[in-house]
Amino acid sequence: MGRLTVRRPVLRLNADGSTRQRPDTLVAEEPLEIRVDGKPLTVTMRTPGHDVELAHGFLLTEGVIGSGADLSTARYCDSLDEQGRNTYNVLDVGLAPGVEPPDVSLERNFYTTSSCGVCGKASLDAVKLKTRYSPATDPLRLPRTVLLELPDRLRERQKVFGSTGGLHAAALFDATGELLVAREDVGRHNAVDKVLGRMLMDGRVPAAGTVLMVSGRASFELVQKAVMAGVPALAAVSAPSSLAVELAEEAGITLVGFLRGATGNVYTGAERIEL
Amino acid sequence: MGRLTVRRPVLRLNADGSTRQRPDTLVAEEPLEIRVDGKPLTVTMRTPGHDVELAHGFLLTEGVIGSGADLSTARYCDSLDEQGRNTYNVLDVGLAPGVEPPDVSLERNFYTTSSCGVCGKASLDAVKLKTRYSPATDPLRLPRTVLLELPDRLRERQKVFGSTGGLHAAALFDATGELLVAREDVGRHNAVDKVLGRMLMDGRVPAAGTVLMVSGRASFELVQKAVMAGVPALAAVSAPSSLAVELAEEAGITLVGFLRGATGNVYTGAERIEL
Repeated sequence: MGRLTVRRPVLRLNADGSTRQRPDTLVAEEPLEIRVDGKPLTVTMRTPGHDVELAHGFLLTEGVIGSGADLSTARYCDSLDEQGRNTYNVLDVGLAPGVEPPDVSLERNFYTTSSCGVCGKASLDAVKLKTRYSPATDPLRLPRTVLLELPDRLRERQKVFGSTGGLHAAALFDATGELLVAREDVGRHNAVDKVLGRMLMDGRVPAAGTVLMVSGRASFELVQKAVMAGVPALAAVSAPSSLAVELAEEAGITLVGFLRGATGNVYTGAERIEL
Repeated sequence: MGRLTVRRPVLRLNADGSTRQRPDTLVAEEPLEIRVDGKPLTVTMRTPGHDVELAHGFLLTEGVIGSGADLSTARYCDSLDEQGRNTYNVLDVGLAPGVEPPDVSLERNFYTTSSCGVCGKASLDAVKLKTRYSPATDPLRLPRTVLLELPDRLRERQKVFGSTGGLHAAALFDATGELLVAREDVGRHNAVDKVLGRMLMDGRVPAAGTVLMVSGRASFELVQKAVMAGVPALAAVSAPSSLAVELAEEAGITLVGFLRGATGNVYTGAERIEL
């Protein structure tokens, strides 16, 4: 539990044609099963650590809970490995009284709950139906200089990436560029869930006036998570997808892509950037 | 259907402090629902195109089918958007007589079917239980020079990445470096499923004597897919995870990471690389 990295021997192929046996540091990847009131809900491959935050963030961004008070308990089950040790890979959370349990076919829900069949539009409508927050009206104003510094500030916090090159990072900043939470994970969606779960546990969701910075690309799923947590701006080092831009536009979120080296592309919500 | 890219206006923040409104090309992302004999199995966010290959590859690497003959039909359902047009986002495949239908809780299966609870070891055991092929005994020998050229050969085929920067790529090569199949997708697992699905449809699974090259990182899931298709070697531009290396070792697959700029790290199966 909590092992972020693992050491392994590796045969290095050097550029000069030589080879060398040396140890290498790998990012840890382990399955986590999330149960709700004892019923298995999902399994995600994640980097161990911050699992309670991950569960909070996952349930928030899937629309199951809206505040930290919606969960009453969180504990690791007795999931034992072959040596009889707890794997710390099964986390059971208890819903507070009155909270509706999740649909077990939850994963499919986000894409198919609309009347118009399975399409991009249906996916956008599903998010609209589920979200409790409206980041569209968030008065965030983000100075261009602050925005352009976010990739460097994120990288400063990427401790494990520096040693393994194998982790996605996500961080939440306020409009002055101050870091609120940063997390790393082998799964991009997990890094975001851990950040948003931390905010939820601290009573800071909806996360008004914040910008979420991610190390990779901006997919539909990441924009969905921002919407569900009331985050008004998402910035990514790499490219957004078509559906990510459509959802950002529909939800009134500012979406910036290719943010690196003092340049960036503003796809939606440019009015929030102070040029 | 089949739209790989979408054009959108973007506000470009230039390095000199100026801004410019210009069109940008985005990679298309749309949901695909895969049904088996009319029953919904999974929804994946993918780049439209090669959907029948994607379904074949997904069902192969999840252990549902082992040859192209295991599927008798594949057709798009009448999933209509608000204008009454087919979205081509619901694909129904029919199993051939005698083929066991998939467990609907399939996604969870790979991680929790072992006796030892939910842990990395259980995930490895689950793959061992499910695979029909044994790439461990594959006599592949890969010259170092061929291996080191694979990233460039993959990049040559990344047509859409060049215009959008937003796609993952996967390609299968033989031991002489000849390209067999290459595919791009917004989802890394989808790109691999499309490659392996094509091979299955061509009657070339198990894909003996081949190496699978991917543009990003090597996760547990990608090694799992290689094993399930009988691919004896996996090479990635970026880092592998701990569990990816463990599975590669257990399954007898050659795993190379950080393959770029005439260098690379061989984590397992170094005996297949002719130094």
